Amino acid sequence: MWQDKLQEECGVFGVYNNNEFDTSRMVYYGLFALQHRGQESAGIAVNNNGTIVYRKEMGMVADIFDDNVLDYLNGHSGIGHVRYSTTGSSLVENAQPLVIKYTKGHMALAHNGNLTNADTLRKELEAKGTIFQTTTDSEVIAALLSRARIKYNSIEEALVEVMSIIKGAYALVIMTPHKLIAARDPFGMRPLVMGKKEDSFVFSSESCAFDALGVDLVRDVDPGEIIVISKEKGLESIQTNKKKQSAMCSFEYIYFARPDSVIESLEVYEARFRAGKVLFEEHPVEADVIVGVPDSGLGAAHGFAAASGIPLVDGFMKNRYVGRTFIAPSQGLRELAVHLKLNPIRSQINGKRVIMIDDSIVRGTTSRRIVNLLREAGATEVHVRVSSPPVKYSCYFGIDTPERENLIASTHSLDEIRDLICADSVGYISREGLLSTFKGAGCEFCTGCFTGNYPVEIVDEEAKGCQ
Amino acid sequence: MWQDKLQEECGVFGVYNNNEFDTSRMVYYGLFALQHRGQESAGIAVNNNGTIVYRKEMGMVADIFDDNVLDYLNGHSGIGHVRYSTTGSSLVENAQPLVIKYTKGHMALAHNGNLTNADTLRKELEAKGTIFQTTTDSEVIAALLSRARIKYNSIEEALVEVMSIIKGAYALVIMTPHKLIAARDPFGMRPLVMGKKEDSFVFSSESCAFDALGVDLVRDVDPGEIIVISKEKGLESIQTNKKKQSAMCSFEYIYFARPDSVIESLEVYEARFRAGKVLFEEHPVEADVIVGVPDSGLGAAHGFAAASGIPLVDGFMKNRYVGRTFIAPSQGLRELAVHLKLNPIRSQINGKRVIMIDDSIVRGTTSRRIVNLLREAGATEVHVRVSSPPVKYSCYFGIDTPERENLIASTHSLDEIRDLICADSVGYISREGLLSTFKGAGCEFCTGCFTGNYPVEIVDEEAKGCQ
Amino acid sequence: MWQDKLQEECGVFGVYNNNEFDTSRMVYYGLFALQHRGQESAGIAVNNNGTIVYRKEMGMVADIFDDNVLDYLNGHSGIGHVRYSTTGSSLVENAQPLVIKYTKGHMALAHNGNLTNADTLRKELEAKGTIFQTTTDSEVIAALLSRARIKYNSIEEALVEVMSIIKGAYALVIMTPHKLIAARDPFGMRPLVMGKKEDSFVFSSESCAFDALGVDLVRDVDPGEIIVISKEKGLESIQTNKKKQSAMCSFEYIYFARPDSVIESLEVYEARFRAGKVLFEEHPVEADVIVGVPDSGLGAAHGFAAASGIPLVDGFMKNRYVGRTFIAPSQGLRELAVHLKLNPIRSQINGKRVIMIDDSIVRGTTSRRIVNLLREAGATEVHVRVSSPPVKYSCYFGIDTPERENLIASTHSLDEIRDLICADSVGYISREGLLSTFKGAGCEFCTGCFTGNYPVEIVDEEAKGCQ
Amino acid sequence: MWQDKLQEECGVFGVYNNNEFDTSRMVYYGLFALQHRGQESAGIAVNNNGTIVYRKEMGMVADIFDDNVLDYLNGHSGIGHVRYSTTGSSLVENAQPLVIKYTKGHMALAHNGNLTNADTLRKELEAKGTIFQTTTDSEVIAALLSRARIKYNSIEEALVEVMSIIKGAYALVIMTPHKLIAARDPFGMRPLVMGKKEDSFVFSSESCAFDALGVDLVRDVDPGEIIVISKEKGLESIQTNKKKQSAMCSFEYIYFARPDSVIESLEVYEARFRAGKVLFEEHPVEADVIVGVPDSGLGAAHGFAAASGIPLVDGFMKNRYVGRTFIAPSQGLRELAVHLKLNPIRSQINGKRVIMIDDSIVRGTTSRRIVNLLREAGATEVHVRVSSPPVKYSCYFGIDTPERENLIASTHSLDEIRDLICADSVGYISREGLLSTFKGAGCEFCTGCFTGNYPVEIVDEEAKGCQ
Repeated sequence: MWQDKLQEECGVFGVYNNNEFDTSRMVYYGLFALQHRGQESAGIAVNNNGTIVYRKEMGMVADIFDDNVLDYLNGHSGIGHVRYSTTGSSLVENAQPLVIKYTKGHMALAHNGNLTNADTLRKELEAKGTIFQTTTDSEVIAALLSRARIKYNSIEEALVEVMSIIKGAYALVIMTPHKLIAARDPFGMRPLVMGKKEDSFVFSSESCAFDALGVDLVRDVDPGEIIVISKEKGLESIQTNKKKQSAMCSFEYIYFARPDSVIESLEVYEARFRAGKVLFEEHPVEADVIVGVPDSGLGAAHGFAAASGIPLVDGFMKNRYVGRTFIAPSQGLRELAVHLKLNPIRSQINGKRVIMIDDSIVRGTTSRRIVNLLREAGATEVHVRVSSPPVKYSCYFGIDTPERENLIASTHSLDEIRDLICADSVGYISREGLLSTFKGAGCEFCTGCFTGNYPVEIVDEEAKGCQ
Repeated sequence: MWQDKLQEECGVFGVYNNNEFDTSRMVYYGLFALQHRGQESAGIAVNNNGTIVYRKEMGMVADIFDDNVLDYLNGHSGIGHVRYSTTGSSLVENAQPLVIKYTKGHMALAHNGNLTNADTLRKELEAKGTIFQTTTDSEVIAALLSRARIKYNSIEEALVEVMSIIKGAYALVIMTPHKLIAARDPFGMRPLVMGKKEDSFVFSSESCAFDALGVDLVRDVDPGEIIVISKEKGLESIQTNKKKQSAMCSFEYIYFARPDSVIESLEVYEARFRAGKVLFEEHPVEADVIVGVPDSGLGAAHGFAAASGIPLVDGFMKNRYVGRTFIAPSQGLRELAVHLKLNPIRSQINGKRVIMIDDSIVRGTTSRRIVNLLREAGATEVHVRVSSPPVKYSCYFGIDTPERENLIASTHSLDEIRDLICADSVGYISREGLLSTFKGAGCEFCTGCFTGNYPVEIVDEEAKGCQ
Repeated sequence: MWQDKLQEECGVFGVYNNNEFDTSRMVYYGLFALQHRGQESAGIAVNNNGTIVYRKEMGMVADIFDDNVLDYLNGHSGIGHVRYSTTGSSLVENAQPLVIKYTKGHMALAHNGNLTNADTLRKELEAKGTIFQTTTDSEVIAALLSRARIKYNSIEEALVEVMSIIKGAYALVIMTPHKLIAARDPFGMRPLVMGKKEDSFVFSSESCAFDALGVDLVRDVDPGEIIVISKEKGLESIQTNKKKQSAMCSFEYIYFARPDSVIESLEVYEARFRAGKVLFEEHPVEADVIVGVPDSGLGAAHGFAAASGIPLVDGFMKNRYVGRTFIAPSQGLRELAVHLKLNPIRSQINGKRVIMIDDSIVRGTTSRRIVNLLREAGATEVHVRVSSPPVKYSCYFGIDTPERENLIASTHSLDEIRDLICADSVGYISREGLLSTFKGAGCEFCTGCFTGNYPVEIVDEEAKGCQ
Repeated sequence: MWQDKLQEECGVFGVYNNNEFDTSRMVYYGLFALQHRGQESAGIAVNNNGTIVYRKEMGMVADIFDDNVLDYLNGHSGIGHVRYSTTGSSLVENAQPLVIKYTKGHMALAHNGNLTNADTLRKELEAKGTIFQTTTDSEVIAALLSRARIKYNSIEEALVEVMSIIKGAYALVIMTPHKLIAARDPFGMRPLVMGKKEDSFVFSSESCAFDALGVDLVRDVDPGEIIVISKEKGLESIQTNKKKQSAMCSFEYIYFARPDSVIESLEVYEARFRAGKVLFEEHPVEADVIVGVPDSGLGAAHGFAAASGIPLVDGFMKNRYVGRTFIAPSQGLRELAVHLKLNPIRSQINGKRVIMIDDSIVRGTTSRRIVNLLREAGATEVHVRVSSPPVKYSCYFGIDTPERENLIASTHSLDEIRDLICADSVGYISREGLLSTFKGAGCEFCTGCFTGNYPVEIVDEEAKGCQ
């Protein structure tokens, strides 16, 4: 277990190219910027005059595509996907985009999120004779879309119906012979932004993918909104049943999204920085230095330092080559192996009272190891401050969370957690404190993993994790 | 163009293991023996207590599977497939077996043949909302099966209905959570044999796959027959609408099947040997030596030699490494490059009048090159004898034939052919002569590629070649 | 050009295992920690009772070795190497360790550094009939060692002679059937440390490799010292002609070494932090925020912040997947592509006067891009501070430097540099300031790339860069 | 053990291109035609104006090289090599050509054969300080050449000296900045032929490589001859100490060489055909059919048929995909697995008295299996006839032979052999009979593996098999 983090499960990207831009390379660089949202498989599909050509494989974006493949993926529109998944479904068959042939020609879909009634819908469809070749929600959506399309005159009308049937979180990009479509679930749980470059339209899970492409961020796709791009009509927007209260995933700001991304008009880094300030206000402590756990704790550590006046130091060297597949250390070396990933910088720690800032504690195992690293490096006290509230409940909306019994905050008191992770004190940001860091964001938030109160009905209890 | 042959398009294999045999390795060696029926992709699926695990990839059997994969493919029943296809659909998505989830759990299908109404059926299914992810007939069959299964109590009843809908040639093996099913089209156009090893049942496109496994050949699956193997009932047979006249593909005996296979109780080699005898009777010629074009012309060459008394010699050395992907020779070397594949053995040819025996002439280009090889090696005359009648019509039943305008016999007279291939004389076996070589086979034959008279209605004109 | 940095060219590692540790995995994790010293090729050789088995390949440590290979590399001692090289010699033949057979059996060598008289020595050896199969200095050393070994009773005596012949920088580990040997050049230009774990001896280019293995740092190998480990005699040290003044490469502290490494008793991070302080003292400037260029400018940025009281902010998001092979952006996207690597965090920059801290400016191209990133993100002023003096001269001792005409500081005045990189001001640390940051290190320093005064005679003018 | 044959160990090829031919592709196709002489590794080196660029890897010719590599291997001369080796030295380091730098620039060598005093020479060279990086004889030759070159004015004079030192079998091609050199050992034990295409010179182990390139076979390189091709002087020949009696390897005609090759003016196939005739004369037997074991027994089978009047039939179907790496059959299937390679064609065997012709019996295990295949297929008698005398002694000249105790003829009487291989009778061709089949060849022959009398002194007893 190299990493004790919740896992984002997908990133999506789409281009409708009205200029002479290189479609496949735009998608490629877009996916490269979204790589943090999924490292297990990646795919690009382009629309070459109604025929969809595509390539999807297990692995990282930079390893799958080369110039030959990108030259082959020639088209005026294109979509892409990066995916992480739980072990069980790590099959190339589940890689996206899903490319299908239906009554109106070829179609490709890419999906980030998780349907909470997918199993029920699958069983209903199977009972009508539908066959499934993957375990992805995309295939459920495609099967529903294809059936709905028979009744309606356009794919977008069909999508309106499908969105009234599916429940849960989704950010979708869909490519048909003549259109590029983006849509978000009625609660807007997963991010999806729209940009423009000259006359071309671009959609992405995060705005960080726009910067390298010179794409201007226009706005977020609204909760429940369907945006259709076509040659004839340019951009059209359809607003389906938007909820009164939206419910953007809090963890996008806390951990998943890249800090340089702007989601719902709020820069992610700014929210993290503010969380550090709030943490100091809620859980002040006397200490000599502040250390952020790289990389996810650094933003809040800066905020904590600014608010407290305690100096922020570089406490750890992170091995930048960790992340590649890596031989698991044999028994004798396992405990030491955390040093392979993070090694303390002794001069900054030795003899100091340390405040260690991290974004979250999931199982607690890694936290204990890092606290111990600090102690070995000479820290006299270690005070852990966490920029998210205690994670006590599973996520049903596209985040891979461990079983509840493995969530340390679900099964232990604060004092127990402190002892288990060997800290002198531990302080979590409060839910209210967290929400205050989102000021300025044009949405409301899901805090289900902290409270167990989910915005959407959970139809299929097992609908957890990645589908 | 290294080879000017018609191309078989698939081989199927299946095992229902009631013993302690190693299922995945049985399928592996079975596919290895069937490799000649398709070298583009291969796949194995096994049924592990109702869950189907599988691996399919582009490439040769020996390159795709290793011990780790075969250990992983653990199950009590298994099916496999080797595939060749026309360039257009050389996608890993089209590799078989097709593995699906439907209302009754997982199912895997492997198919050899070609449906003649697949496009029509696809359009009908699409009009009802079905999506397709491949261009294989297997997916059409699976979609129909899944829909039919709702109406009936068993998969075999559903298959009876599906077989009343689909038209064309097929040899199918289907694996469900509890059954292994084999079926042939009503005309029995593609071969499919059944064997037993102790209490276990085995199906294969050809019996040659049985020999290396110690499997006893029991019989051919009958035209229109469905054989169901299950734990509870052992073997059951359902006879659907068998035709009065069956129509086994003539080319299975002429070229596709391995000579050591026994199809419909007739050893393939024996039919080829007889064809040489008939050729001599129909087209005798004075000459010094007989040369068979390796490897497909050798059986008939032996028969011609036995009948004529003219000595059969080894006229060519065939490079046994041809067949691997190979850099196409640059312009200057192209004409010489036939020597890379076949090189004449001068001592056997020089100064001799040669009878050259081949199994077929398709485009004629390769024949001309081989005749010229013989002349360069000193042959004073070259008389070409062909153990199939002139190929004038396309096949719609699973064989990849060139467009009619590229079939030399479709557009040229016998004299023109002789001149085009630079021969001194050319003689084809007659249709009647060919049919006489099949004596003892328990079936009738399709000779559509010679006559244009097909046993089955061709619904979709474009339904040619590999689907 | 994704990176405008000087390039380290090698890392070495060695284990003499007197315990039951897993030799090959110790080397593997050691190399993994040294990966930053060379990403082009890697190799491990182990001594299995006098026979040396090895594996070396192009690529990263984690991609080359797997459990099977490490199990195969079974032995009681082992050495490893990571390598970067200039393009010209990116051949697998040049990967190290070099494994040879000579009169006393097998021997393996791994080398970090660069000989300045290698070409002369090669020519002398060739004139005596020696053949060379690589372009590495290791092969020159091996050829000399092998010849010297004939005259002497031991490999270490032979090495004493060889060290009197070769000139330049080297940190060597050598494995013979019965010994493990480590040696440094008389000026101690490249680092090499010794550690112990129980009864086993370990050598490494940097101490960071010890932490993950539970190895205790004992001391640096001395300039001109040869350390011999053997079963019989344990550790022996031979001091050859040590120079009065040693000359450790300044850039090891400035940029190459990992900040958590301790070289000559001084933690690298501490030197970098001090450099920031000195920079502030030498080049103070009024500003709102300090931004360190990730990752190499961060240590000095912390020091500058501590000294100046100006807040250090996270100015950039670095894409952690850059570093993998990567498709070069097409023309239209090239200027934007720096965003793929570094993207500014607008909230921290916008409307601010920024001090940007980097460790060095080589060509200046990347600096200009990064300054412009800050301006695009809203910086009102950008003051560049550099924690190394201007790099004006080539390195001959194992660092890949551009031609002098491409070193911006070699051909331009400070004002020109400021204008070329679009900064409002630019300030380099002075040579004296830099040397003051090394206080506590048990050595003197080479500053040849700043001054052109090299500690060693440069015999072969072309002896630059990686050999 | 899929194959019980002696193993050839190398093929060499060289081009000196005075025309505008594509050098690297000529070598590529040449090696492709020589692939049967070594399937373990292959390499091509070309001389690009004095710099040698090369690629060598484990694997087959068609798998190693692609158009990109061949385009990169641009030069006016080039040499290539295919290699088989015993397991112990299956290292990429041993792949050839060997490319070195020496006092006169770059040089590449490719070698077929085996030196019988290589170990002695290595020790002598090592005692003088030479280091070795491979276990190939080529490296010994290169080391000697490089030393000798110092004393002489030309590489060819140096080679004359080296050829007076090395003992054993060798066919060499050497490429220097300005020359292409071919040489054979004084006994001419391994074949090497010269061809011309317009003004360009080509050397090859066998003439079969010429046919696909339109190269005219000029003559064999003579035993002890050195042929030097250069721009200035065209072709020069130096005759070193040619022996009175040459000693070409008998097994080149019996088994190794391709039947379409012409060696020493005798077509290989012709010798094999004659051997069948002699076999009949020496060991006639009454029978119904003759079966040749594919592929190596077919030539003699034709000869036996011609002499005896007994009809030759196709007794076996050989799986043309055997030869690829292949999963070894698990215990239960091992005995059956011979069917995967060879399957009897029952109609030709059943009820017949069979004469089975093979080229040699080495261990006898495969022969027993094949005899049993025939019996299972219904043969009433099986009479084995072998077109080489009993193999009783090891080869020291480049052929991989088992230890003597594993040679069935070395340890068993003829009657025992007959019983061990389950034959009704067994007959080997006599040594005299074999020699009579070589009539017309311009050389004498080595029959050491039959008689133990070798033409050359065996200096190093262990100098067996592949070096």
